[in-house]
Amino acid sequence: MLLKKNIPFKYVFGKVKYEILVVFLYGTTIALLYENYHDIRISIPIAVPTVLGTVLSLLLGFRSNQAYDRWWEARHIWGAIVNDGRTLTRQLLGFVKSSYDGDGAQQLCDRMVRRQIAWNYALAQHLRGQSNPRELRKYISAEEYEYVTSYTVVPSGLLEMQSQDLTKALDEGWINTFQQVEIDRTLSRLCDSMGKCERIKNTVFPATYSLYIHFTLLLFIGLLPFSLIDYFGYVEILITVAIAVSFSLIEKMAIHLQDPFENKPTDTPMTTISRNIERDLFQMLREKSIPEYKKEDAFYVM
Amino acid sequence: MLLKKNIPFKYVFGKVKYEILVVFLYGTTIALLYENYHDIRISIPIAVPTVLGTVLSLLLGFRSNQAYDRWWEARHIWGAIVNDGRTLTRQLLGFVKSSYDGDGAQQLCDRMVRRQIAWNYALAQHLRGQSNPRELRKYISAEEYEYVTSYTVVPSGLLEMQSQDLTKALDEGWINTFQQVEIDRTLSRLCDSMGKCERIKNTVFPATYSLYIHFTLLLFIGLLPFSLIDYFGYVEILITVAIAVSFSLIEKMAIHLQDPFENKPTDTPMTTISRNIERDLFQMLREKSIPEYKKEDAFYVM
Amino acid sequence: MLLKKNIPFKYVFGKVKYEILVVFLYGTTIALLYENYHDIRISIPIAVPTVLGTVLSLLLGFRSNQAYDRWWEARHIWGAIVNDGRTLTRQLLGFVKSSYDGDGAQQLCDRMVRRQIAWNYALAQHLRGQSNPRELRKYISAEEYEYVTSYTVVPSGLLEMQSQDLTKALDEGWINTFQQVEIDRTLSRLCDSMGKCERIKNTVFPATYSLYIHFTLLLFIGLLPFSLIDYFGYVEILITVAIAVSFSLIEKMAIHLQDPFENKPTDTPMTTISRNIERDLFQMLREKSIPEYKKEDAFYVM
Amino acid sequence: MLLKKNIPFKYVFGKVKYEILVVFLYGTTIALLYENYHDIRISIPIAVPTVLGTVLSLLLGFRSNQAYDRWWEARHIWGAIVNDGRTLTRQLLGFVKSSYDGDGAQQLCDRMVRRQIAWNYALAQHLRGQSNPRELRKYISAEEYEYVTSYTVVPSGLLEMQSQDLTKALDEGWINTFQQVEIDRTLSRLCDSMGKCERIKNTVFPATYSLYIHFTLLLFIGLLPFSLIDYFGYVEILITVAIAVSFSLIEKMAIHLQDPFENKPTDTPMTTISRNIERDLFQMLREKSIPEYKKEDAFYVM
Amino acid sequence: MLLKKNIPFKYVFGKVKYEILVVFLYGTTIALLYENYHDIRISIPIAVPTVLGTVLSLLLGFRSNQAYDRWWEARHIWGAIVNDGRTLTRQLLGFVKSSYDGDGAQQLCDRMVRRQIAWNYALAQHLRGQSNPRELRKYISAEEYEYVTSYTVVPSGLLEMQSQDLTKALDEGWINTFQQVEIDRTLSRLCDSMGKCERIKNTVFPATYSLYIHFTLLLFIGLLPFSLIDYFGYVEILITVAIAVSFSLIEKMAIHLQDPFENKPTDTPMTTISRNIERDLFQMLREKSIPEYKKEDAFYVM
Repeated sequence: MLLKKNIPFKYVFGKVKYEILVVFLYGTTIALLYENYHDIRISIPIAVPTVLGTVLSLLLGFRSNQAYDRWWEARHIWGAIVNDGRTLTRQLLGFVKSSYDGDGAQQLCDRMVRRQIAWNYALAQHLRGQSNPRELRKYISAEEYEYVTSYTVVPSGLLEMQSQDLTKALDEGWINTFQQVEIDRTLSRLCDSMGKCERIKNTVFPATYSLYIHFTLLLFIGLLPFSLIDYFGYVEILITVAIAVSFSLIEKMAIHLQDPFENKPTDTPMTTISRNIERDLFQMLREKSIPEYKKEDAFYVM
Repeated sequence: MLLKKNIPFKYVFGKVKYEILVVFLYGTTIALLYENYHDIRISIPIAVPTVLGTVLSLLLGFRSNQAYDRWWEARHIWGAIVNDGRTLTRQLLGFVKSSYDGDGAQQLCDRMVRRQIAWNYALAQHLRGQSNPRELRKYISAEEYEYVTSYTVVPSGLLEMQSQDLTKALDEGWINTFQQVEIDRTLSRLCDSMGKCERIKNTVFPATYSLYIHFTLLLFIGLLPFSLIDYFGYVEILITVAIAVSFSLIEKMAIHLQDPFENKPTDTPMTTISRNIERDLFQMLREKSIPEYKKEDAFYVM
Repeated sequence: MLLKKNIPFKYVFGKVKYEILVVFLYGTTIALLYENYHDIRISIPIAVPTVLGTVLSLLLGFRSNQAYDRWWEARHIWGAIVNDGRTLTRQLLGFVKSSYDGDGAQQLCDRMVRRQIAWNYALAQHLRGQSNPRELRKYISAEEYEYVTSYTVVPSGLLEMQSQDLTKALDEGWINTFQQVEIDRTLSRLCDSMGKCERIKNTVFPATYSLYIHFTLLLFIGLLPFSLIDYFGYVEILITVAIAVSFSLIEKMAIHLQDPFENKPTDTPMTTISRNIERDLFQMLREKSIPEYKKEDAFYVM
Repeated sequence: MLLKKNIPFKYVFGKVKYEILVVFLYGTTIALLYENYHDIRISIPIAVPTVLGTVLSLLLGFRSNQAYDRWWEARHIWGAIVNDGRTLTRQLLGFVKSSYDGDGAQQLCDRMVRRQIAWNYALAQHLRGQSNPRELRKYISAEEYEYVTSYTVVPSGLLEMQSQDLTKALDEGWINTFQQVEIDRTLSRLCDSMGKCERIKNTVFPATYSLYIHFTLLLFIGLLPFSLIDYFGYVEILITVAIAVSFSLIEKMAIHLQDPFENKPTDTPMTTISRNIERDLFQMLREKSIPEYKKEDAFYVM
Repeated sequence: MLLKKNIPFKYVFGKVKYEILVVFLYGTTIALLYENYHDIRISIPIAVPTVLGTVLSLLLGFRSNQAYDRWWEARHIWGAIVNDGRTLTRQLLGFVKSSYDGDGAQQLCDRMVRRQIAWNYALAQHLRGQSNPRELRKYISAEEYEYVTSYTVVPSGLLEMQSQDLTKALDEGWINTFQQVEIDRTLSRLCDSMGKCERIKNTVFPATYSLYIHFTLLLFIGLLPFSLIDYFGYVEILITVAIAVSFSLIEKMAIHLQDPFENKPTDTPMTTISRNIERDLFQMLREKSIPEYKKEDAFYVM
């Protein structure tokens, strides 16, 4: 997630440097031809690119909106993951009867909460296509690590282990059927959140949609110099570049928003969220030593 | 689902080749008449198609948005199917008491998970209007196959068999009433997902909506050459074709997005999703031999 | 619901024939006055109707969207009715213990499923303001028919009878409290769907909204000839009519979409859906003789 | 709620009469100055108000949409209130065991249903800022009336009394815990609906949003005569008034839609809905004497 | 939340005073250069800024819509908090059996309701980044205050204490398992609402989105004087400023709406809502002395 401040000019410029170069060369070529070869002068009324500009504006507007919705949905899902992590912990602490068989029940709660912390990190890495995180080794036993990494979708394996521990708690009489079902619903919601993230990750934004908008944008920029050259001469180049950059940046912005799990600065800040969950759940467990992370001095958080 | 890369030019071109031809001939005719029969020259100010262009842009914008919503809803539903498949399996493994009557309960779980895998394939084929898939024969018994294919909606029959097995599990004491109701809710959600897919499949996008937009598009393209001919002469033909292609492609795109279960490259990738569910559920069952599918080298996945 | 194909030209033309006539006469009058009485010639720049055209396009765009949402919500609700009908049947077959008191329990299930089939038809007719359908007499007893038709909202009476049968099933011990509550939830959802349909039916689309858009449309069409007459002379009439028809058709389309229960070709196809539910539920009951309906050869289904 | 027909012209005209007067005087002043003082003639190209007209159209479009959403949400909530009233009654009739202690249980059901009817009327009056309705005295005892009117939010007090009766029913053994919780959920939904109505009522539509749109509208209308005067002379006044009325009406419409509980003709028809609930619930109770209300002959229902 | 009336001109003006100054100076410079150095006169057709104006209008329109959605979602969440506070209280009063062990159970209810009141204030302060409110000390014991302030997220600690009291009530037999789970669900919803507020608070509105729109706005305003100077001379300055202010105000408005928890006049009125909840819950407890707050005479409520 990009922060509000200090976004370096270089970062923004880097997004459109090739576009600027190409449009600059294109505009210059048109201007040179126009000024030097008077016989083949073509000039079109500005109303023609205006019609294209209107349909393009609308499509970019709707597309930005849809991209924004994907991005906001991704953030919604991770918000739900935070909530369900807290709810799971509160339910474990509130439902499991630790009085009867102190140690076992207490350990089970502890193990499940730690596994939940690991789950967040594992999901973040899985979505970003990275290998298994250190936190996975840290918060689950070696045996469990072995088992869980045999899954294609590691967080799915972790959830199944949560379910097994829940069954165990029922068998031991630490919770009753009613409470088992209730905690299982929380697990189902976590499973749903995982599935929703995968849906966003794996569903390509309709390729034809992107393609046809891009085609219309090219057509629009291609016609622009012809309708400006008459008024401006060489100044046309600057205006063409400025307008092209405006439209291109908005197209880029939509492209970044629509894919929020790509290990880029515009990502959903999954690592930061996972760390916050880690801190909150440890505080609920009244754990003394909570891992601290130093703030990085960047224009984005991951 | 079209992939991001390698969409062949031929595919895109094929969508609008007739439109290009017709608009080309129409534009040429206008230009020839205009140049040769000076008496009947008609030229209209470009502001007239601009007004139409604005309303057309807006309607295409909203329509693309609605088509996109249908497409995204279809993907949502299949995302929910993935999640509920996993949840069903987790609940079966967690709830069914295999200790009392190991074999029977174990077999029942196994049978239900396999039937769930078959259900996904069956639903995909049903929506695409294809005959029953190989996977149906593979994952359910011959007897069940016989019974289930007597249904008009095959996946509906499969769900009913799941329900019967659940009742059996309750009668045998493998689950309690409370757990039966909870698993039944998962089945209800799967039933809902199936119904939602059928709703999208069977509901024609409002025919008058499509028709009137198409009529306005024709009127717009029809007026275009008259307002361009004055400035450009024969070059008008190219510009008319380019603008007509822009608008037509966007109309086509909406048409493809709005019908996501038509056995076309723009479909929801139901087969791929079904295979992923197959793999995930088998991993949860700790099945050794998971069927593998070789990646096809296409610009889309089905 | 209009089908994709074969919508007769007459149907579309019939929607706007009066508009065409009036605009034609209006345009002709303006043209005649303009050509013959040179002293009172009024001509306005085309930019004036363009401003109105823009706000009109946007309002028509948003309004079409809202009308579409009402239409799609209506379809959603009937999709939910299909799903809940299936779920109710599956729950009855799965929950009711027929082993203890075979006949009574079996009959109760059968009666409730048939009543559910009748409910769909009754709801469809109630929304369309028609009298009680044949299917009501066919699927419920004469006594029940007597009772149920004393209700202002017939389907509401049917749901209450479902609830009474459920209480009876509990009293007889055929289901337990837990299962009663679960089936009652399905009835609540059906009750909700009924209420949602009534909400759409009884809520007039904001009258001022329609009125003011219509006023702006009239103003726009009224100004149009004055801004075209200068360029075209008598050809103005044709173009005015064409543009007026474009905008009017879109307004009409929104009006049809926004009221989906009016016994018109653009209706939600409630009869067809009710028949599909009838077929599906009978297949679940393993009923032998399922009523068949011959396909009508129309450009719409009801 | 305004009905579709017979909206008097006076009503619509009354909404914008001051606007018409002011714009008329303003336009006349400009025209007089322009015609008589040739030295200070200012004329601006029509493209300037067009740019403002575009952004204004868009903002009015989005704002109408948001106002419509508030209005439609209000209607949704009252639709949910209808459904939950029916569901509550069905649950009471279906769950409460009247066989054991006929009189007491029967009376409790009756009392709760009547209180639910009173609740609708009380909520409607509370939202409209009116004093307590007759129906409150009619359907609850004097004692309860005394108690309930000590609440700032009267319907909230009624719901609490429902909850107390529910507890009593549990204590008496007329319902079991499971059924108590289920009926309590229906009460929670009614409590939610009440809170949602209050949210819409108490949340001012963002004041800056309204203000800045109004400012842009004034700027747009202010510039309009200067860009028309050149072409039309005194006819400019009429066109300015017509366009100003178009835009103003749309702004007014949004203002009415966004506040649906203001005791105005554009309100959600809460009284009518409450009467329908009264009729439906009495029919479910098999009450003989259902109050009838004569239809008023107005262009709106309250 | 800004109220409808009495928004001081100073407040609105203060939002754009720097913009006005800068645009004024810029416009003046252009005008001076244009009038005095005839050799370097640059004038561009107004259609160029019109194209930019259209895309800008659309992006501002969509962005206002998204900002409005965030603002409205924030208000939704606090509406849900009101409802769940009432529901929690109703459930506690209805479910907890005070007859068996009057004092203890009664005290527990009382303590939990007061803690819920404190929770609202604590959440409001937490979101606004303020220190712990007086109400926290007032409504929870010193001991609990000590414990709860050790949490990074104070309201999270309060919820956990609610959960502990619930477990105690179950252990003491004041509620049964079924009722515990039901009240726990209300706590889960409150936990969800807290998480949703944090999501809105912590998620920066996509920085690139804001940035690129701002860039396009600058480009648009930068080009504006060049296209107006030809017609107006020095009057250009006024019109440029007026249009720039129109667009800037709309951009500002979106910026305020998108961040509803910033301790500014445009905030969600969390303090006012918390006070209303305090009053309502005390009335439900039949508390005699309800704290009263005098109405402040401001143009906004916090």
